[in-house]
Amino acid sequence: MERPGTFTILARDGHARRGRLLTAHGAVQTPIFMPVGTVGSVKAVCPQDLREVGAQIILGNTYHLYLRPGDELVARRGGLHRFMRWDGPILTDSGGFQVFSLSDLRRLGEEGVEFRSHLDGSRHLFTPEKVVSIQRNLGSDVMMVLDECPPGGSDHDYAAASLGLTTRWARRCREAYPAGSGDQLLFGIVQGGIFEDLREESLAQLRDIGFEGYALGGLSVGEAKEDMYRIMAHMGPRLPEDRPRYLMGVGTPMDILTGIEHGIDMFDCVLPTRNARNGTLYTSLGKVNIKRAEFREDDAPLDPACSCYTCRTFSRAYLRHLYMAKEILSFRLNTIHNLRYFLDLAAGARTAIEAGTYQAFKARVAAVYPE
Amino acid sequence: MERPGTFTILARDGHARRGRLLTAHGAVQTPIFMPVGTVGSVKAVCPQDLREVGAQIILGNTYHLYLRPGDELVARRGGLHRFMRWDGPILTDSGGFQVFSLSDLRRLGEEGVEFRSHLDGSRHLFTPEKVVSIQRNLGSDVMMVLDECPPGGSDHDYAAASLGLTTRWARRCREAYPAGSGDQLLFGIVQGGIFEDLREESLAQLRDIGFEGYALGGLSVGEAKEDMYRIMAHMGPRLPEDRPRYLMGVGTPMDILTGIEHGIDMFDCVLPTRNARNGTLYTSLGKVNIKRAEFREDDAPLDPACSCYTCRTFSRAYLRHLYMAKEILSFRLNTIHNLRYFLDLAAGARTAIEAGTYQAFKARVAAVYPE
Repeated sequence: MERPGTFTILARDGHARRGRLLTAHGAVQTPIFMPVGTVGSVKAVCPQDLREVGAQIILGNTYHLYLRPGDELVARRGGLHRFMRWDGPILTDSGGFQVFSLSDLRRLGEEGVEFRSHLDGSRHLFTPEKVVSIQRNLGSDVMMVLDECPPGGSDHDYAAASLGLTTRWARRCREAYPAGSGDQLLFGIVQGGIFEDLREESLAQLRDIGFEGYALGGLSVGEAKEDMYRIMAHMGPRLPEDRPRYLMGVGTPMDILTGIEHGIDMFDCVLPTRNARNGTLYTSLGKVNIKRAEFREDDAPLDPACSCYTCRTFSRAYLRHLYMAKEILSFRLNTIHNLRYFLDLAAGARTAIEAGTYQAFKARVAAVYPE
Repeated sequence: MERPGTFTILARDGHARRGRLLTAHGAVQTPIFMPVGTVGSVKAVCPQDLREVGAQIILGNTYHLYLRPGDELVARRGGLHRFMRWDGPILTDSGGFQVFSLSDLRRLGEEGVEFRSHLDGSRHLFTPEKVVSIQRNLGSDVMMVLDECPPGGSDHDYAAASLGLTTRWARRCREAYPAGSGDQLLFGIVQGGIFEDLREESLAQLRDIGFEGYALGGLSVGEAKEDMYRIMAHMGPRLPEDRPRYLMGVGTPMDILTGIEHGIDMFDCVLPTRNARNGTLYTSLGKVNIKRAEFREDDAPLDPACSCYTCRTFSRAYLRHLYMAKEILSFRLNTIHNLRYFLDLAAGARTAIEAGTYQAFKARVAAVYPE
């Protein structure tokens, strides 16, 4: 019987890969987009909705869940899957990104990172061992190592020093959870900013340690898009061939398709869910803002090419009305649609890779989503 | 073939009636509770959810829909049913109550009531003819006449004068929509405050005009509960026997069961939906606030006796977490449960009336919901 962590490449088209990752909660068909369920709920939708839009694996945020309701409470409830009633695979981040972006950062040192909660100002310490322990309590299928996330404009010296710390933290995470010690997988995170040499150095150090998967971190954090694409193009194909590759926190439809082109398998981003709540919707005809006056009396479905509950059921005029009236239902219907768009995008990529038509597929989407 | 408006009494238990009201969008089994869908959406839930919780007929607010998105726009969309994709019966109020409670009231006169929108301050005039026209545009199955809603503390003189105006407005509504002129039904509203003589006078005047159903208005508007119950007990059995009877905007579980006891057939109230959003939940064990610390680690379903999606799927601990974290999903899951409670209550009343055990049923609920 195959063990969790088994990764099989089923087809290739250039660098793009069509794969299958086995987890303790089932297989994930890649390339895949992972909806973000920050605090134990993908905002505005329920597990049934997630299944219906085609979600295979969702993301939970370690930082948020640690603070509220607390990882130990979740462990006593039988883990995150049972707590939130999602029985498919879950990936949890390490909390590092939120500590650097959300909390009141107090002290970054060799031991770990001390911060104050954005909720109540309480003081906490994340060490590599601690974030593994939290993710063990949450029981996610894929755990991430603690990493430092240098800001997008960091120079070579800063990025180099940061990378060293990230590697030492990654080793401590691995030591806290040696390969094969359970059904959860542990992924390493390649840092190094926008510098090819540092990215390669980071990857080499992580490969020495050995992980069940490898992520590109620290992208889409304020750097220029051409820098991000340059690093994706350089590093994508260099990431270990036989392991799943994950581009963290990215991005737009074109970012995702570019990542897939360079051999990335997994993506997550708050874009579809957050934009849904702002009324910005992704359709096969391009991005639209539902509040625009042109939709006032438009009886057509939001996206005639989409088969989600929202598009099957409601008109643009009704969706606009719900948004303008600030009705709660607006959040859910918009989120259902946007998630379906991103999941259909990944499904389309899988089909195209199998058919050897990935470039044509990407070009068709690029005609509508130039960036 | 039976025409919309046909009302059949299937069973009786004391004054309580088990009936069936035929509308252009299907039959309503009474007694029934009607969820309130203020602006074309029962807040936080979708039509599928409404079906699943057992909703038969929902309410739309004429005042809100007139202001946004506008009744003429709704008419061009094919009416409210088609616009919001609810194919069951809909009752619309006349807008009067909201004009008196929400808007900036400018002038009340024989002609109608002038007000400023609570949304943008724009000036509007509701006349009896206008509110019929709006409800014709919305295409509701049950329309209500325009009435003046005197405040709960009104004295006999004020209530008597107000009643006269309400009757004259009711007659103009009927003239604008004569009996049998379409598939929509028009209900009269009995006013008269907390005074039996005025209530009887109001009813006699409305019967002379003739409506497809009769409502008790102006209750649960600040008067003492014993006054409300006194008027319910006095007027319930006096309302026309062969027509549906509707108690507007009421109320708690015990208010509803008391109304049914006195022969009322239809109820609406924002209590279950509004309280759901505040974390106050109705269960077979009594009313609970989901934020209470005792639920932090409680793995039981919210209500072990309930079969709604929320109770079938999630734990009290998870529902508490969603509420504390202000997750949007909390609104929907709580609303689904509370609506199911109120609809199960009505279903339980129907079964008990058929079995001739209504008093025992009411006593069992009263043990948990004393008021």
